[in-house]
This record gives sequence, C-alpha cells and structure tokens, in this order.
Amino acid sequence: MTSEPIRVLVTGGTFDKEYDELHGKLYFKDTHLAEMLRTARCRVDVRVRTLMMIDSLEMTDADRRAIVDHCRACDEARIVVTHGTDTMAETARVLVAAGIGKTIVLTGAMIPWAFGSSDGLFNLGSALSFVQALPAGVYVAMNGRCFAGGRVRKDRDTGVFEEGA
Amino acid sequence: MTSEPIRVLVTGGTFDKEYDELHGKLYFKDTHLAEMLRTARCRVDVRVRTLMMIDSLEMTDADRRAIVDHCRACDEARIVVTHGTDTMAETARVLVAAGIGKTIVLTGAMIPWAFGSSDGLFNLGSALSFVQALPAGVYVAMNGRCFAGGRVRKDRDTGVFEEGA
Amino acid sequence: MTSEPIRVLVTGGTFDKEYDELHGKLYFKDTHLAEMLRTARCRVDVRVRTLMMIDSLEMTDADRRAIVDHCRACDEARIVVTHGTDTMAETARVLVAAGIGKTIVLTGAMIPWAFGSSDGLFNLGSALSFVQALPAGVYVAMNGRCFAGGRVRKDRDTGVFEEGA
Amino acid sequence: MTSEPIRVLVTGGTFDKEYDELHGKLYFKDTHLAEMLRTARCRVDVRVRTLMMIDSLEMTDADRRAIVDHCRACDEARIVVTHGTDTMAETARVLVAAGIGKTIVLTGAMIPWAFGSSDGLFNLGSALSFVQALPAGVYVAMNGRCFAGGRVRKDRDTGVFEEGA
Repeated sequence: MTSEPIRVLVTGGTFDKEYDELHGKLYFKDTHLAEMLRTARCRVDVRVRTLMMIDSLEMTDADRRAIVDHCRACDEARIVVTHGTDTMAETARVLVAAGIGKTIVLTGAMIPWAFGSSDGLFNLGSALSFVQALPAGVYVAMNGRCFAGGRVRKDRDTGVFEEGA
Repeated sequence: MTSEPIRVLVTGGTFDKEYDELHGKLYFKDTHLAEMLRTARCRVDVRVRTLMMIDSLEMTDADRRAIVDHCRACDEARIVVTHGTDTMAETARVLVAAGIGKTIVLTGAMIPWAFGSSDGLFNLGSALSFVQALPAGVYVAMNGRCFAGGRVRKDRDTGVFEEGA
Repeated sequence: MTSEPIRVLVTGGTFDKEYDELHGKLYFKDTHLAEMLRTARCRVDVRVRTLMMIDSLEMTDADRRAIVDHCRACDEARIVVTHGTDTMAETARVLVAAGIGKTIVLTGAMIPWAFGSSDGLFNLGSALSFVQALPAGVYVAMNGRCFAGGRVRKDRDTGVFEEGA
Repeated sequence: MTSEPIRVLVTGGTFDKEYDELHGKLYFKDTHLAEMLRTARCRVDVRVRTLMMIDSLEMTDADRRAIVDHCRACDEARIVVTHGTDTMAETARVLVAAGIGKTIVLTGAMIPWAFGSSDGLFNLGSALSFVQALPAGVYVAMNGRCFAGGRVRKDRDTGVFEEGA
C-alpha cells in the first residue's frame, strides 16, 4: 500500500458544524480534522489545509475553481476533500471535468462530528483508505461505498448517496 | 468500485469490550457491529457473523483454525475480520499461510466503541474500504494504514502498527 | 429527604433540540427526559408530562398560562419545569406571581442533550435535588446554582444565570 | 440559596476510572472533576482537592481517617466527597461517627465519566445541589436521591442505593 503523503482540503460542510450555545444556532468555527485524526490514532502522513468553511449550498463557482486549483497545484498526488453533502456530487463533476490526473476522494458527514454519534469518523476512515488504494480519478466516498465522481447523486429524501447523474 | 457483498467475521477484541457496572470490570457481551454500521449510515451489503467474543491474548490455535475455515467456506470473496490488536498480526500470518485466495482485511480498535472517543469507527470505515478496493490477499488495516498480512507488527510500547515481522 | 413523587413538565428548549440530518437544521421531536433519567440511573419517583416542545423565544402568554395551570392542578407538590434558557426567568416571574404554594424548579441546558457534551444531565440532577430539598417557592436551577424565581436573569453575552431583575 | 464556597474532596472511584489502551485495563490517572465542572458550566465557587485516587474496595481505615481529617480541617462548611460506590456507605458511617458539624455529601458513579454515557454528571449536579440546600449532616447522593449517612446501603445485585444499615 502507498505510504505517500495525503493532502486533505477542508471546505466545511456538516463535518465541521458546531452549536453556538449563546445564539442556539449552528455555525462554523474551526475544522475538527486534527481532533478526528487524533481520535482515529491515524498514522498516515496527512497534510490538512482549510480552503473555506461553508455550507455546501452556498458554494459558488469561484469556490469550486479554488478547489480545482488547489488540487492541481499541491505537491501530493492523493487528495481528500471534505465537503457538505448537498452539492458534493456537483463539485465532483467539476473536478472530473478539470482532468487533474490525481486520486481525489470527496467525503462528508450527515451528522456533525461535534454532536456525538456522527458518521464523520467512519467516512474519514473510508476516504483516507480509498484514496490510498485507488488509481487516479475523482471519487465520492459516502455510506461505506465509493462512487465514480461523474456518476453519483445524493437522494434528498433519504440522505443516501447512490449511482446516478 | 465493487458492490459485492462483504462478510464481517467478529472475534471480539477491544472493539467490543464493555463496562460491567456491577463488578467494575471490562467484559464482552454482544458485538457492537450492527450499531456501528447504523451510526456510519453504511449502505454496503455487509453480512455479520460472530465467531467468538474473546480477548485476542486468549485466542488459541483452534480459534485461528475456525477463522481460517470460515474465511474459506463462506460465499463472499471479500472479508473483514474484527480482532483484538494484541495478536492480530499472528492471525494475519496464519491466514496468509492458509492461502485462501480472497481479500481478507483484519482490523480492531485501541479504545472500546462503547467508551465514546473510540478509534473503532474510523478503523471499520478503513477496513470496509480497503476490502472493496484491494486484490486478493491478507491485510491489516490500522491507524489509517494498510499492511501486508505477513509483514506487520504492533509496537507494544506505543500501540501503533508498523511494517515488520 | 422527601421521597414524594416529582412532576416534571417538559416545555422544550435546548434540552430537547435535535439535529435534522436531511435538512441540516435543529428541530424538536420527542423529549429526551426518559433517556436522561435512564442514563442517570435515577430512582426518584418522577412523572414526566410534555406540555409543549418549543423554543422559549416563541413562548406566548397562553403557553405560560398552561404551565401555571398544570403546576396548580397536578397532584404533586414538587415540580421541575424544563424550559429554554432565553425566557426562563420570565416564566419564573409568572409562576411567582401565580402564588401556587408548591416547590417549583425551572431548569434547562445550553447544549442539547443529543449533542454529546451537554450540561443538561448536570442541570437535571441539580433541579431534581433542589426540588426535593427546598420549601415551597419558585426557583431557577442553572450553572449549579439556585436562584429565587423573581430575582434571576440570564446574561445574554455569557449565557450565565445570575441574580438580578 | 447559599453562595458559600464548596470543598470537593476527590478519592477516586468509578467516577475517575480511565481505559489504558496499551494494556487493555482500567486505571486511575487524574481526576475529571475540572472537566466535568466545565461541561456543566458550573458557576458555584468550588475548590477541588484530590486526596487519593483509588478503588473504594481498597480504601483503608487510614484513608478514611484522612477524609475525616480533611473534612474537619478545611475552611469550607459544605463539602462534597467523590467516592467509589462499593464502600461509600461505610465511609459515610465513619463520617457520621466523627461528628464534624458540617454539611457533607458523598457521591460517585456507576459508569466512568470518560466512557460516554455516565451517570457521573447527574450525580455531581445532584451532590452539589444537596450540599447547598441541606443543614449540617452526612449524606449520600445517588440515583437522584439523598440518604442520611448512617442509614444507606448499596444493593450489590442491582447497583442501586437504598435506605438500610
């Protein structure tokens, strides 16, 4: 198995949502990636960079260009992008179209990591594993499955990812 | 990515330890696999079977033969074995020697799933992903990494898995 | 110490907020009181009744009359009211003015019980204890302290309860 | 309600047990009291002192004398003692016999605080509340109830505290 370094690009999403106890609202502060990797006792050479910290429903074309640019420019050939689930499939399609020639895996969470019974740690373990094992290409790792970047969609009624356009 | 069914063979280990509040001791009751897969919102076709529920320091040659037999006999070509970390490398070597011709990934946890900040969900996500992506062979998935079954050991002083014999 | 039965009136508040994973929003479903009492291994004779399940910023005069009516009409002489923190002091003043002649303790939480590191279980333990130990009157139990119902306010900048009007 | 300072004397017990991931055993390191008070957003003037960090089955007569001495000597008139549940009733009787003339509340937990779904935070909230509200005497606060120090026992089969000698 590869022991190449892995780049993790953080864009926000449910993964990193927190509860603002003074205003009773959800918000973004800092990413929980470092804490999650510590809990996981992860010993992969992971280099985390926060690109943005937003709800993926608010992600603009310019934001997606920034993700593409960072994937292309960074030294690493294996990249995990943490992303809100609502438009993850859309960003995956943009990355496919960009033709970057690296192994890029997008992942996210349905429940915030800070809230206890999150799926985030499972998804992070899944994404970090697929990114080591798979050849160049764009993938979405959700629900323990791995989808080709151009052929995946989120079912809005169930929250489950499935093959589709 | 494969959408073949995956067999999960449960053998116990820290993964499934619980706290017995009447006697103040750790013990095994039932596996937490189903609960973990639910938390993970896992949609892979996973078939769980509990073979034993023991501390891996107490695993006998007969226990290891039972694991080998089940790996060989089951219908699935992709298998995850949950296992205590102390002798996981030893069982991996037995599975390598058995030459079964399937993709078999062993994984475990340093902290019990029931205790809150466990690495178990990360490792389960990792093992279920590697088992889908890798060719036939025996592997150990720990610390976000994947090791060849015959060349891995646990460093007893740090609890970290590394290449070695 | 009294072993009289205790009435718990649930009105919602942060205590019972949950995360709606399909819409990424906070919402109310059912109260977590029974689950909290189970976690607490509580053996007090507690009778829970849900009056409403709302954010206390939306509590109307009619809602407060319903709380007063239930406090007056129920058989129990010792009552805990779970309540959002934003207008808890206001409801306490209404209860004081009603002159019911029972021991009534209001409590709540800054962090939802469902989110892991909540103050809710501490506050519930505190409220259930003060309600057993104190004479007739209206009280607010927050931050480990107990305030007279007519002389308490929440500091909106810190989220801390303190004496004041 | 009193706003006097409260002394908390830590003696260990399940409250403070942790999981040693290298050896797969339970052990004591530091007390979690400060972390628990932070989670609770507690604003009572609490002064914590660790006297010992042991399983209460190993508590000796000399240990109990140390607890009595500290209760008598400290400046505070209101004291919470965190204690293993197995011999909590015995220490309570020793404190009763010592006739110290302060309000002393013993409490503990059935599940370690570090393990997620602990009763510890509830019991701490309960003990800190009873100790503020009750007159001088020795009490045990468990299961949401408060028992006179000389007339309480733990039912070993259920783990529940009840009146008895």
